[in-house]
Amino acid sequence: MHLFNKVAVIGTGLIGGSLALIIKKQKLAKKVVGVARHQASLDLALKNKVIDRGALSLNVIKGADLLILAAPVDTIINLRKKILKFVSRDCIVTDVGSTKEKIVSLLAGSFPNYVGSHPLAGSEKRGVSHAQAGIFKGTLCILTPTAKTRRAAMKKIQALWRKAGAKVIYLSPGEHDRVLSFTSHLPHAVAFSLINSIPADTLKFSASGLKDSTRIAASDALLWQGIFLTNRKNMLKAITAFEKKLLRIKSAISQNDKEKLTAILTRAQKKRNSLG
Amino acid sequence: MHLFNKVAVIGTGLIGGSLALIIKKQKLAKKVVGVARHQASLDLALKNKVIDRGALSLNVIKGADLLILAAPVDTIINLRKKILKFVSRDCIVTDVGSTKEKIVSLLAGSFPNYVGSHPLAGSEKRGVSHAQAGIFKGTLCILTPTAKTRRAAMKKIQALWRKAGAKVIYLSPGEHDRVLSFTSHLPHAVAFSLINSIPADTLKFSASGLKDSTRIAASDALLWQGIFLTNRKNMLKAITAFEKKLLRIKSAISQNDKEKLTAILTRAQKKRNSLG
Repeated sequence: MHLFNKVAVIGTGLIGGSLALIIKKQKLAKKVVGVARHQASLDLALKNKVIDRGALSLNVIKGADLLILAAPVDTIINLRKKILKFVSRDCIVTDVGSTKEKIVSLLAGSFPNYVGSHPLAGSEKRGVSHAQAGIFKGTLCILTPTAKTRRAAMKKIQALWRKAGAKVIYLSPGEHDRVLSFTSHLPHAVAFSLINSIPADTLKFSASGLKDSTRIAASDALLWQGIFLTNRKNMLKAITAFEKKLLRIKSAISQNDKEKLTAILTRAQKKRNSLG
Repeated sequence: MHLFNKVAVIGTGLIGGSLALIIKKQKLAKKVVGVARHQASLDLALKNKVIDRGALSLNVIKGADLLILAAPVDTIINLRKKILKFVSRDCIVTDVGSTKEKIVSLLAGSFPNYVGSHPLAGSEKRGVSHAQAGIFKGTLCILTPTAKTRRAAMKKIQALWRKAGAKVIYLSPGEHDRVLSFTSHLPHAVAFSLINSIPADTLKFSASGLKDSTRIAASDALLWQGIFLTNRKNMLKAITAFEKKLLRIKSAISQNDKEKLTAILTRAQKKRNSLG
């Protein structure tokens, strides 16, 4: 059953490409068009049957009844003005940006049928070559409606993510950004800092612990710069909370305090085990 | 070919159990005896053919020509006096402790044929139930000889680790502890702090990034308390180095400095990619 007539995806990378692939495979739309910055990405997207048509310019999105903005948060913010003239007032617009407060406030003001999404999927890998239809299976997708969000648009976006296999949950944009600052953005800031602090001459002795705990530091720098800076207030709070916890361990080590250190590490061990 | 006559392993857990298993499977000794704190561990070790004989008391180690101390660093340090009367002067003694300076200085003073080892294997899992003969394949094992270390003993310990599939390298105990403070101990301190800083109400929204970067926070609290406190000086330096790197990201976020933040994250991304 078609949920949409023409779907336009701006950014046919890992997330946008996977979503386009799902829409095509499940025939959720009659037509899927994609916009990318490089012809090579479009060629690969066409070859892998991720999209029906690709273009480097935005006018291909004209006539879409669903527009998916699958670009880094900075780009989504910059796209708003550029796409205004191509998007009808009836078109449902969504994005997959990792921060929501700033994006939602901007896009909801421009597009009456805007619904913010954030699928908690993806990885340090990028590009349409990694796109796959199973990427959202069993993951969470957070929708961030506001009082103004139109119910009909939200139902359709909810249906789309459910078809993709995600469990849909709802948070306000502000709550989303607070939660994600801890569960995703802070771990990235920590991983970037951790790898930067390892002296070059010691790197060759690294085992699986360091590799696992810095895997996400291989993530795209520009993407994460945008995430951090569009979630500044929460990021600063989350980093401060982390610094305090690290300082507790540092103090216990400095004071040679076995009991205190064991208590801190035991709490961490239990909490991590509860995460599964 | 027998490298040893009677091997005694104190601590038949993940590392000690795996090493015992390898010695038995490859017939590197005529007999392997194990000491554990709990009868259940010994029963499982016997059932899984990890050891030939098990005991809760130390006198079973008498007559061994290789003694392997496979216990947490604290326990290894405490064992020294207790095992003195059971260990002949000809017996080769090694340990698998994660810090070396303190252990080596203590054990080398008591056992003329002592050689310090640290296999960079293992995981957050513990116990003989996880022991397996392939655990050291392709991993690094650091030997930490000093000027006093006897060459014949070192050759035998080197041969043992090579038979286990590890690549053997050499560092002084002090250099070992400096290197490991960055490549292993700091990542653990960071992971413990990270999971402790995540508010309980946000944990259910965690995705693979947080899980991967805190996997090692599920490690045993007592084990890591001992590692941190026997490597205090290096730990404090490593944590301080990390704090400075995190502060650079925090400042760039606070100052909304796109260029600076992108530069920091790009450096991290490149460094992490070089790690493989």
